[in-house]
Amino acid sequence: MEPVKIGIIGLGTVGCGTVEVLARNADEIARRAGRGIHTKIVAVRDLGKPRGCDVAKLELTSDPFAVVDHPDIQIVVELMGGNDLARELVLKSISNGKHVVTANKSLIAEHGNQIFAEAQAQGVTVAFEAAVGGGISIIKVIREGLAGNRIEWLAGIVNGTANYVLTGMRDQGRDFQTMLREAQRLGYAEADPAFDIDGVDAAHKLTILAAIAFGIPLQFDKVYTEGISELTREDILYADELGYRVKHLALAIRTSDGIELRVHPCLVPNTRLIANVEGVMNALVVKGDAVGETLHYGAGAGAEPTASAVVADLVDVVRVLTSDPNNRVPHLAFQPGALADLPILPMADVKTAYYLRMNALNRAGVLAEITRILGDLEISIEAVLQKRSREGESTVPVIMLTQPTLERYMDQALQQIESLPAIAGKVMRIRVEGLQ
Amino acid sequence: MEPVKIGIIGLGTVGCGTVEVLARNADEIARRAGRGIHTKIVAVRDLGKPRGCDVAKLELTSDPFAVVDHPDIQIVVELMGGNDLARELVLKSISNGKHVVTANKSLIAEHGNQIFAEAQAQGVTVAFEAAVGGGISIIKVIREGLAGNRIEWLAGIVNGTANYVLTGMRDQGRDFQTMLREAQRLGYAEADPAFDIDGVDAAHKLTILAAIAFGIPLQFDKVYTEGISELTREDILYADELGYRVKHLALAIRTSDGIELRVHPCLVPNTRLIANVEGVMNALVVKGDAVGETLHYGAGAGAEPTASAVVADLVDVVRVLTSDPNNRVPHLAFQPGALADLPILPMADVKTAYYLRMNALNRAGVLAEITRILGDLEISIEAVLQKRSREGESTVPVIMLTQPTLERYMDQALQQIESLPAIAGKVMRIRVEGLQ
Repeated sequence: MEPVKIGIIGLGTVGCGTVEVLARNADEIARRAGRGIHTKIVAVRDLGKPRGCDVAKLELTSDPFAVVDHPDIQIVVELMGGNDLARELVLKSISNGKHVVTANKSLIAEHGNQIFAEAQAQGVTVAFEAAVGGGISIIKVIREGLAGNRIEWLAGIVNGTANYVLTGMRDQGRDFQTMLREAQRLGYAEADPAFDIDGVDAAHKLTILAAIAFGIPLQFDKVYTEGISELTREDILYADELGYRVKHLALAIRTSDGIELRVHPCLVPNTRLIANVEGVMNALVVKGDAVGETLHYGAGAGAEPTASAVVADLVDVVRVLTSDPNNRVPHLAFQPGALADLPILPMADVKTAYYLRMNALNRAGVLAEITRILGDLEISIEAVLQKRSREGESTVPVIMLTQPTLERYMDQALQQIESLPAIAGKVMRIRVEGLQ
Repeated sequence: MEPVKIGIIGLGTVGCGTVEVLARNADEIARRAGRGIHTKIVAVRDLGKPRGCDVAKLELTSDPFAVVDHPDIQIVVELMGGNDLARELVLKSISNGKHVVTANKSLIAEHGNQIFAEAQAQGVTVAFEAAVGGGISIIKVIREGLAGNRIEWLAGIVNGTANYVLTGMRDQGRDFQTMLREAQRLGYAEADPAFDIDGVDAAHKLTILAAIAFGIPLQFDKVYTEGISELTREDILYADELGYRVKHLALAIRTSDGIELRVHPCLVPNTRLIANVEGVMNALVVKGDAVGETLHYGAGAGAEPTASAVVADLVDVVRVLTSDPNNRVPHLAFQPGALADLPILPMADVKTAYYLRMNALNRAGVLAEITRILGDLEISIEAVLQKRSREGESTVPVIMLTQPTLERYMDQALQQIESLPAIAGKVMRIRVEGLQ
């Protein structure tokens, strides 16, 4: 059979990885797909810029529209990133009747509803495995592998940079800023590190995962997002003493009242596999009603792990080229007319357990005042860790684990605790997820 | 769209799980697949036997051929197990032009080459996700999710019973027989526990995984298989002291000389996630050249985890009903004409590190004799653990970790060591897998 001709937009890290994997594994890919995949043309912003991969055999253009309008190309691979131009190019590809493969999580999370509707109308596929978890295949697993399940929740470490920073703070006892600088030096952090550190990147990925898990539209604006920049080494060490690891989790949970969508630091029991996912690695736990919990782990970013997902999508698209569009795997796992209108819960209505750390004046009765406030709001205490005050300090750290309570009650409790004369400064609050 | 009509053969644990999941999640499944899945008829061996699931709405028959010959049925779900009758029924289904979904690992491992050739000729699909790792989706991940990779190796805990026994021997310090009886009491062990304990079940699964990973035919008879019944609590505790867990692994490794296919106990560094997979859980690590290592974890058996895979296969088959057979995912991941003729290596040519435990007479010079034998065969010693002799015993346990060497050299070394007058009995040998 004739090779399928593709065009690639963007030849950065992932673009180069894709070109290299397609070339190196051309034989295995053709043995699997039944036909070759030929890179016909590649659009780059700057033709003169040196590349990290061999471009000698590639036809390069500086005009991305030359790719999406190319008459010979059946699949456009969008690896340029960003939202505005990428959206225009993807929509143009679709209206030109071309299939699309993209690694662009922000594009899918923020504009996916429109893109998928256009693709549906044109009978083409937009594949986006590389948008979440690199080559872990988590989109495929949830969308196809768990198709028999009612998904109850999922929890993931989906940003390698944030996990790298947290791992270093614990293992090497270094502080947040030092670890962030190291991640940047090693090239892990995004150009704008705020995307990693503040949880925006994780929120993009969670938006996509929640849609395909629950059959709801993409709703990026409803994700509660909290970053890791407030975490201290002390919190990580106290958590360790209590038997927990601090992880930056993306959580999507089905409750009887609606869906929780939240990205924030969590204490996770150290006996859980996901608590032991270290460095830049990613992992997703998915709980289905039939299968129970499954965990999927691997490199969540990087040139070739991401290229692995891009190429898998290419092979999938090659396979569906001849199939009836109505029988293909739906973009968001559920048929477009069958998405559910489940409410996304505000954080005030979310119930979790809490780790609290406060600086209390070293005098009698303080603990009684705190426990009275918690008791009045029916918040039960699971454990207390009172540290000795350090030389020359008038306050002593008090650490508490609570039983699950509504976030609205915890907000009230913290307001009251912080207004106590015996409490200095703000209370540090980290949610605890037992993942039950 | 009209629901797809299916027939099920076998209503044991997995059959009942499948009936229940299809009924409970009928709405979500139809929202995903775009059409419902209707169980038209179910064949059971004994119509009078009480069932673990609600059969009130099912048409039951005691004749399995009434299912495979049923004119209204498009997909036959074979959940009866065993080889002979199951093979006959699957082949008859295929020749009747029906697609097949099966959970039968021994059938696929031992007769898959014939079954897939027939299916290919008839243009139907035989889906078998449930044959390995329950609902983990490992077949789909390797066959589709990692389609861009050259797979280098895979290593798995694929038999929950064996892992349950090993976990209990370590955590509770109980012996092999006690743990096996407990596994049987809890219903984990297969009817013939030898399948779990001697590694036959794991070898069936490894046969399937290796075929789809490397693009080779199914070759069950070439798998080296060693069970766990010789392992002692002491070995597990010594391994722990050395920083390792003892796991029963199924390994498929691509080397420059051919493919290693082996199932045997291994020491695995306890820092690896797979070393921390406990109880009846399964996990697979797959190393691809692009993606690096990925790990996939979940319940490998049980009614509903297996049903999860059966239903996922049903949804996949429903989706390809209208597609051109040549564009579907090939049964063994690679196109039937593109399988490779890679040799499977004999164990003598396999290179691994070793854990050795021997009982040495408590006298000077013994260690020197042992190290001389190893040294003459160029086997380097990584670590030695010499335990004090126990009260009233004339021998002392000597534990060694070696550097990797060819199994043929280790065989020679052990023959010489066992013939030393200062060594009592056989040397216990467990292979060490660092999974690099």
